[in-house]
Amino acid sequence: MTATPAYGATAPDSGVNPLTIERRELRGEDVAIDIAFCGVCHSDLHAARNDWGRTNYPFVPGHEIVGTVSAVGSGVTRFKVGDRVAVGTTIDSCRKCDACADGEENYCREGSTGTYNGKDRIDGSPTFGGYSKAIVVAEPFVLRVPDGLDMAAAAPLLCAGITTYSPLKNWNVGPGTRVGVIGLGGLGHMGVKFAKALGAEVTMITTSPEKGAGAVRLGADHVLVSTDKAAMRAASRSFDFLLDTVPVKHDVTPYLFLLDRKGTLCIVGMIELMEPFHSGLLLQGQKAVSGSGVGGIAQTQEMLDLCAAKGIGAEIEVIPMDQINHAFERMEQADVRYRFVIDMETL
Amino acid sequence: MTATPAYGATAPDSGVNPLTIERRELRGEDVAIDIAFCGVCHSDLHAARNDWGRTNYPFVPGHEIVGTVSAVGSGVTRFKVGDRVAVGTTIDSCRKCDACADGEENYCREGSTGTYNGKDRIDGSPTFGGYSKAIVVAEPFVLRVPDGLDMAAAAPLLCAGITTYSPLKNWNVGPGTRVGVIGLGGLGHMGVKFAKALGAEVTMITTSPEKGAGAVRLGADHVLVSTDKAAMRAASRSFDFLLDTVPVKHDVTPYLFLLDRKGTLCIVGMIELMEPFHSGLLLQGQKAVSGSGVGGIAQTQEMLDLCAAKGIGAEIEVIPMDQINHAFERMEQADVRYRFVIDMETL
Repeated sequence: MTATPAYGATAPDSGVNPLTIERRELRGEDVAIDIAFCGVCHSDLHAARNDWGRTNYPFVPGHEIVGTVSAVGSGVTRFKVGDRVAVGTTIDSCRKCDACADGEENYCREGSTGTYNGKDRIDGSPTFGGYSKAIVVAEPFVLRVPDGLDMAAAAPLLCAGITTYSPLKNWNVGPGTRVGVIGLGGLGHMGVKFAKALGAEVTMITTSPEKGAGAVRLGADHVLVSTDKAAMRAASRSFDFLLDTVPVKHDVTPYLFLLDRKGTLCIVGMIELMEPFHSGLLLQGQKAVSGSGVGGIAQTQEMLDLCAAKGIGAEIEVIPMDQINHAFERMEQADVRYRFVIDMETL
Repeated sequence: MTATPAYGATAPDSGVNPLTIERRELRGEDVAIDIAFCGVCHSDLHAARNDWGRTNYPFVPGHEIVGTVSAVGSGVTRFKVGDRVAVGTTIDSCRKCDACADGEENYCREGSTGTYNGKDRIDGSPTFGGYSKAIVVAEPFVLRVPDGLDMAAAAPLLCAGITTYSPLKNWNVGPGTRVGVIGLGGLGHMGVKFAKALGAEVTMITTSPEKGAGAVRLGADHVLVSTDKAAMRAASRSFDFLLDTVPVKHDVTPYLFLLDRKGTLCIVGMIELMEPFHSGLLLQGQKAVSGSGVGGIAQTQEMLDLCAAKGIGAEIEVIPMDQINHAFERMEQADVRYRFVIDMETL
């Protein structure tokens, strides 16, 4: 075992503070990674505070991890010391079920192993996230960071990126698709970039005209201000796909009016008991409310490769490790353009 | 104008009683139809009572109409006197928008004209349904009843049939698809028949083992009793498509647990403010809650032709016109196997 500096929570109200965790000795298939950067996800905050009632303490957040390989187990074939690599939200799964066979380890029938707040499938030890100097992950769950991708800007791709890329692919967004991205935060800004990269016509749907202007700078074709009732009415039945990235509880009703025939609203941010909506909004035109959570390893690699090919990265604000609690506060106020990334040199 | 005997409601609490309506003189594109049978739909009851707050009185229900052509306008080319024809829920639309061009007149951008409680697009007169001796409908909205289809058993195909056929087709149900049909009434029993005809593996999901047995007689492969918690747990993540035909307000949560990866629950019966459900049930596996309402004219004809080719009809109980109020009561108690059809000879 290797004592490893980290930042974590010890109770729902503790905040996130320095602590030391143990990383396991390398098994044959393991890759040891020196972490260079770790993105800050809304889920980190929810889990640190036990908002979902499932957090085990001590708890170390972080599942948007990039770094370099520091050592490899005897059976590792795809990576060598010095390689630029990444780890997302999933670090193991049963590797046998149909979901795993289909490359959707994140939807493993037995439940995948989370990068944090999970339990190692071999020794049962708790898993700790990327707010730390190093991590040890089995080779099949380690991703390659292609040349040309900035390491810091790549970090948020591992959760915010794949969480928006996966539904756009699943619901066949491409040239001709009229896409609305609801909410412009860590997820939403990646949704705009990916929808554009896939050839769609992209509208930023936001409560504030200022955010709209920001979205246009990121590539959005249009802005729809959701508090403008006349504009919302004029936009009714004009979208094929709505990517709903708002991370807090909200009513989807006003957005369902925006869907055209056979349109789908896909929730990627909100994990809540939903506000009730009227089923008639779905019946009239074969519409759907769906959800999506990250993507599998193969799709994540595909996304990283696309990002390198098209020069796509997250828009980030790099912070030192000791600013994390302040960053959480600012994230709650949506005061970030658009994702915090921790420079792990500062730990 | 032609005075025509009918049955209708004059107020929300009036019940349905004899009255006389006027049918228009034939326009060039019109087909006059002597009605032989009319199916009894749950919507008839809802609308007669003004449950949806949009009913105009006097109100004549009925949108599952079969009969024979008694006269045709000067421009009619596809029908002649004596032909067996049918009319469903939609008797006109703008005929110009993208939905109409795609053969989905029911989702017309201007709103389609309902067979009842609608307004004629030319003279603004109210439209009256099939609880009557005759009806006049523009040729593009008249369907052909193929040889070999029993007239009475064909009537419910015009709403219950197409309402279940259309979503099965839209969500690509076919060989290998694991389909659950929730609720065994007018819609559900057609859902079982169509899902089987399309090659799917079909499970009847019902509150009562007796209904399950009935569904097996109709072709269902399996029965899942939804009040059996152990059985429901054992069936979690085992369906690709759930056709939810329950016509009253209910919580979809227990059914969402049954969906496997990328599965869809499609609501076709309930038109209500839904009970809230947890979005996490959708995020975990890219699942969806959707809805669907009838289908277009071309798809309805396709369904009628399929029914003739495969010998599919509704299971019906034929009633005389003066038993309609009693039939409404029995329908509310789900005491019908599986659809009432009015013999219009008795009017």
